[in-house]
Amino acid sequence: MKEISSLSQVFALLHWDEDTMMPERGIDSRAEQAEALSGIIHEKIVSRSLGESLRALSADSSKLSEGERVCVREWLRDHDRSVKLPEKLVRELSSTATLSRKAWMEASRASDFAIFAPWLGKTVELKRRQAECLGYSGVPYDALLDDYEPHMTVAELDPIMENLRAGLVPLVAAIADSGVKNDLRALSLRYPAEKQEIVAREVMSAMGVDSTASRLDRSAHPFCSGISPTDVRITTRYNEKLFTSSLYGVIHESGHALYELGLPGEHARTPLAEAVSLGIHESQSRFWENVVGRSLPFVSWMMPKLKKLFPRQLRGIGAASFYRAINAVRPTSIRVEADEVTYNLHVVLRYEIEKALISGEAEVSGLPSLWNDKMREYLGIEPEDDASGVLQDIHWPSGLFGYFPTYSLGNLYSAQWWHRIRRDVSGVDKMIARGDFKPILSWLRSNIHSQGRRYPASELVVKATGRPLDAGHFICYLNEKYGDIYGVRM
Amino acid sequence: MKEISSLSQVFALLHWDEDTMMPERGIDSRAEQAEALSGIIHEKIVSRSLGESLRALSADSSKLSEGERVCVREWLRDHDRSVKLPEKLVRELSSTATLSRKAWMEASRASDFAIFAPWLGKTVELKRRQAECLGYSGVPYDALLDDYEPHMTVAELDPIMENLRAGLVPLVAAIADSGVKNDLRALSLRYPAEKQEIVAREVMSAMGVDSTASRLDRSAHPFCSGISPTDVRITTRYNEKLFTSSLYGVIHESGHALYELGLPGEHARTPLAEAVSLGIHESQSRFWENVVGRSLPFVSWMMPKLKKLFPRQLRGIGAASFYRAINAVRPTSIRVEADEVTYNLHVVLRYEIEKALISGEAEVSGLPSLWNDKMREYLGIEPEDDASGVLQDIHWPSGLFGYFPTYSLGNLYSAQWWHRIRRDVSGVDKMIARGDFKPILSWLRSNIHSQGRRYPASELVVKATGRPLDAGHFICYLNEKYGDIYGVRM
Repeated sequence: MKEISSLSQVFALLHWDEDTMMPERGIDSRAEQAEALSGIIHEKIVSRSLGESLRALSADSSKLSEGERVCVREWLRDHDRSVKLPEKLVRELSSTATLSRKAWMEASRASDFAIFAPWLGKTVELKRRQAECLGYSGVPYDALLDDYEPHMTVAELDPIMENLRAGLVPLVAAIADSGVKNDLRALSLRYPAEKQEIVAREVMSAMGVDSTASRLDRSAHPFCSGISPTDVRITTRYNEKLFTSSLYGVIHESGHALYELGLPGEHARTPLAEAVSLGIHESQSRFWENVVGRSLPFVSWMMPKLKKLFPRQLRGIGAASFYRAINAVRPTSIRVEADEVTYNLHVVLRYEIEKALISGEAEVSGLPSLWNDKMREYLGIEPEDDASGVLQDIHWPSGLFGYFPTYSLGNLYSAQWWHRIRRDVSGVDKMIARGDFKPILSWLRSNIHSQGRRYPASELVVKATGRPLDAGHFICYLNEKYGDIYGVRM
Repeated sequence: MKEISSLSQVFALLHWDEDTMMPERGIDSRAEQAEALSGIIHEKIVSRSLGESLRALSADSSKLSEGERVCVREWLRDHDRSVKLPEKLVRELSSTATLSRKAWMEASRASDFAIFAPWLGKTVELKRRQAECLGYSGVPYDALLDDYEPHMTVAELDPIMENLRAGLVPLVAAIADSGVKNDLRALSLRYPAEKQEIVAREVMSAMGVDSTASRLDRSAHPFCSGISPTDVRITTRYNEKLFTSSLYGVIHESGHALYELGLPGEHARTPLAEAVSLGIHESQSRFWENVVGRSLPFVSWMMPKLKKLFPRQLRGIGAASFYRAINAVRPTSIRVEADEVTYNLHVVLRYEIEKALISGEAEVSGLPSLWNDKMREYLGIEPEDDASGVLQDIHWPSGLFGYFPTYSLGNLYSAQWWHRIRRDVSGVDKMIARGDFKPILSWLRSNIHSQGRRYPASELVVKATGRPLDAGHFICYLNEKYGDIYGVRM
């Protein structure tokens, strides 16, 4: 299993390199390299003798330490899930994703959902087959969710997402009705990329991202690649006409990086040093990006640094107005451009639609109108066209069903961490205001990062905060923050 | 075998990344990754069923195409050589190299050969055992040479190296006696690294290195990593007080890169698209660096570009004096700082010593004095201390015996290519002077690059030039070039 883990680290490096460094024409040999390596990893993880050894250890686990028991449990989970998927289906999923992404790109350019529809139909069918192979206790969608948020089910998630929607819709409406407009002009002046990079590195370092174990590079789409607990690489892209996009992108990816760097190195290459779920991973990035990074104390700390580098662009802008500008709530049809409040309604919409697709309650052909109806209902707007509507995300073309909810789960978890941290770390706002993030990081380290896959996310959240996950903390957090900014009381 | 080839490409990427991009603390997980991957490659290459299949194909090769026969022949060679080395010996060689390099670094710092001597003794003993495992027809050293220059033997190489030495020693002496001094002051002014990089990229591009299939980065020691025929990466380091070091370093590595990029992509992942030997590889880098790059026509082409970027530094320096400066011959005790003429005497010295170590004619303890005696005899100088003498190279600490001769073989081959190109490509000097390198590259592509491992180097040189390898062309080339510069007639 340690060998498999090292090979998976190499696989992660292949992907990082492909997106950051690889010369353009290297793509075909890279595909062959990735295929050869993933073939070997697959062969090793489905090995019958591995399964037998793990099962024997699991049956007689009295001699194992607690940590060893966790490893055996999680290794067995990984083994069993891999064994359940026939190689033929895995290949079909992968080749369909490649062709489907091509059709999707064409459909997006032409803004014509019909070009993509047959591929989405095929993907849904394959995902249903995948769910049947993997098995589930409730509904087929559970099996897909389980890939990204292990052990989470629709039965648990539905009430959470429903509460989330119910809390958000009135808040969004109240903000729209408030008539308050924030002045965003300063944010769209020109901010040279080289100076943006200086800020990015300064913030990374202040957050505690170890520069001897990490890198920051550029790529078309920002990501964090945790190659090992001592080699974590993040990327960004610099938009010179919208510098907060890169700034908060880097804070977001640094949140992911801190999680990877905080996994216990002494257990490297075991589940004790692996991320527990995408939702928990996202809770780290969104915690730093939104809860910390978009708070007034953080902005107060950052403002003098920004003004030093961008004196002209930020002339006359104080921390308070900068804070209002970066927290402007404006419904948009594009998810990745959405603010902290409306963002989750984009996710709720996708969750509802993909659940309905997998269960058969929704037809692929009816998707554009279903999408637009929900946009109107939840956000009060309608996309201009399919390209900025139902076609905007790469997830479905890539066969990623069950992935979207983890974005919102990240937000919900992050609000729950924050609620607890405010109790556990006294004076935390003042610490943030002077750029001292150590107490926060140390809380995250001991409660989340150091735990690896020891507990399922649902138990982890109880251990860390004393309460199971619910949307309440997040809604309260939003109501308080945006109630202040927009002068509305919810 | 194609799978093994893809995995080896991944292995090359691991090394490239380690030397250019990897964060400092990534080193331990990188070592585990490399070990896991090389273990799998080894397991696959020594597979009994692979050997049987290859042997069956080789025994009944009538149904194979000519290219397929080459593949079977070379794959069998790779398989057999891997099988012959017991895993225990491979591990011992690798762990000894690690410890030996440590001792060598300490010895270099203290300039005390005695610290390194026991490790060199152990390495020599292991290399003898390796030679016995691999087998040889003449002397044990043949088996080691064969790793880098397949099929080359001491019986063939001795007369070549002896002729080389015999031709060089009087030329070096005549140059020293000529009393001619070249003015090198302009070369050691300050040349900012960013501008050096602009020149480097311009020269790479003019030479024909495809920018969509290559990269140029910085590393502590320059190298070329041919990951695949469409993904080749070179590195350099910029010395601001000696800009020709990076300039000619980049031309050198670009020569390697052109070879890798010229391997026939349609045969990727087979021996038909692999470099035939280190000597031939080095013939490409040294051809471009010395024969082309340090020629007067090349300098004439480059001079206006250099003057544009470095007007102050090169004020009053014409192509002719720049040409003399970059071709100054001055014996030095450090191999990597040596000029085109004296360089090969450093190699002759190492070849003679390492042969004697393996055969037992020389004792490790007597190395410093043996080294210094030969330096005096061949180059007329004596190193200041062991650090700048017998301890200067990383090859022996790393267990690389049989590697040094390929540096000189590269020079000899390159002069032989040049002799032939002057006949095959009329007006080649004028082409170089106007920066048109296409006819040269095209000659190298069809005669060398496209051949892969189709023929052993000894046959390849006959096919390409009509004559077997000898030192004559190189000596003539040097006598002519340096006879002109130093006004000596040999």
